[in-house]
Amino acid sequence: MFIIGELINGMYDNIGRAIKEKDKKEIQRCALEQISCGADALDINCGPASKQPLLDMPWLIESVQEVTAKPLCLDSSNLKVITAGLKAAKNKTIINSVTADSEKLDTLIPLANQFGAQLIGITISKKGIPQNKDQRLELAATIVSTCVDQGFPIENLYLDPIVLPVNVAQAQLKDILESIREFKIISEPAPKTTLGLSNVSQSTNARNLINRTFLTMAIAYGLDSAILDPKDNQLMDSLITAELILNKNIYCDSYLEAYRKK
Amino acid sequence: MFIIGELINGMYDNIGRAIKEKDKKEIQRCALEQISCGADALDINCGPASKQPLLDMPWLIESVQEVTAKPLCLDSSNLKVITAGLKAAKNKTIINSVTADSEKLDTLIPLANQFGAQLIGITISKKGIPQNKDQRLELAATIVSTCVDQGFPIENLYLDPIVLPVNVAQAQLKDILESIREFKIISEPAPKTTLGLSNVSQSTNARNLINRTFLTMAIAYGLDSAILDPKDNQLMDSLITAELILNKNIYCDSYLEAYRKK
Repeated sequence: MFIIGELINGMYDNIGRAIKEKDKKEIQRCALEQISCGADALDINCGPASKQPLLDMPWLIESVQEVTAKPLCLDSSNLKVITAGLKAAKNKTIINSVTADSEKLDTLIPLANQFGAQLIGITISKKGIPQNKDQRLELAATIVSTCVDQGFPIENLYLDPIVLPVNVAQAQLKDILESIREFKIISEPAPKTTLGLSNVSQSTNARNLINRTFLTMAIAYGLDSAILDPKDNQLMDSLITAELILNKNIYCDSYLEAYRKK
Repeated sequence: MFIIGELINGMYDNIGRAIKEKDKKEIQRCALEQISCGADALDINCGPASKQPLLDMPWLIESVQEVTAKPLCLDSSNLKVITAGLKAAKNKTIINSVTADSEKLDTLIPLANQFGAQLIGITISKKGIPQNKDQRLELAATIVSTCVDQGFPIENLYLDPIVLPVNVAQAQLKDILESIREFKIISEPAPKTTLGLSNVSQSTNARNLINRTFLTMAIAYGLDSAILDPKDNQLMDSLITAELILNKNIYCDSYLEAYRKK
């Protein structure tokens, strides 16, 4: 499981303040803390309140790169912000994200190719959020076929089925889980799958429980990666144990500690 | 999810002692406590130390029946003990279990038919424990086809893929999960699936975590029932949340409490 830490996001108070005050130490502390908890990559998002994302994104990246060589997941729907981030990045990058709209695909895939970046394709389009797994699969196939046409390596593509909150789209969650399995058989080699986990529990009273239960089920369905809070210890326990059950880590009596020491 | 409480088992100290001293109150307390935690049925097992299981099984059943009308799952590999239990039972019964061996099937299926009992078929045979999902499927198909031949209603059959401990058969757990899905497509109507959950964590240091993670994954694979400890609150939280995600309970902010009040 490729874990992308979600905590460097301007929507969180500490990061919003750090961006505003250019408090590099706070950003670096947050980066290192997530890595020590198991993050393989770090999402970088200026947040909705950023007044100057074209400056903030490179600043965040430069701050983080000073303390880690882990991949960075550039999280913005603004092409200029993504481009500014790619230019600033020395670490490996993942563009988060491209939708299934042709004008987006035709811009972001060449950009990913140019910078050697990986790419998260989300199964959403201008028509809105898909209402079932067939629509998700259709959008996923559009993303994959456009990548193939443009010579983008499918091994570098992550498909995200768009996780919706259980309290507004409960009936869709099973389809979302099944999409994870279906996405893997779109092409050979298979695209990877990822998702923004915390969406599933938005505005609920049992966020951590819902997050870890959904993640465990998604891992059962073959999920390759997730954007999540690696500081949530119980979530990480669930993730490590789910991977143990799928024989991806070797069992020992202290398998939780062994994984964390890795 | 049809929850079969596992705690009335002579291998537990309190039940072993209660059987020995014919302490009916302790058995009844254990029955009611499991039901208050969410058990839909109760497993009844005299345990390996029982010297007179032909007397102990009916006594356990009579004790439990005084306080509940819930179905009872008669757990023994001894045909005479099962028969004694069926004779004593007024509540609905489930025979736990029959293997895929013809001499067992040819005895226990007619017995289940005679008493109107449900039946748990475990995918094991004299040849031993299956080593992969193809062998499990073959044994499951043998059980289903024998039931069909003998006019046993498939809706009353639970197939159990045999859960093995993660510390001895880690590489098999994924196959066991996939067997749950495969068993459902053996026939129309589909057989139900169940499993003895706590086997998965035997002799590990993180029993509860491994149990609830495996159960959550099994629910993702379509599991219909499990034999488990309903007093494990975190396990029940995981179960309730997994069913919520699959849209089997309706979301409300206090969905955990709502389920438990049901």
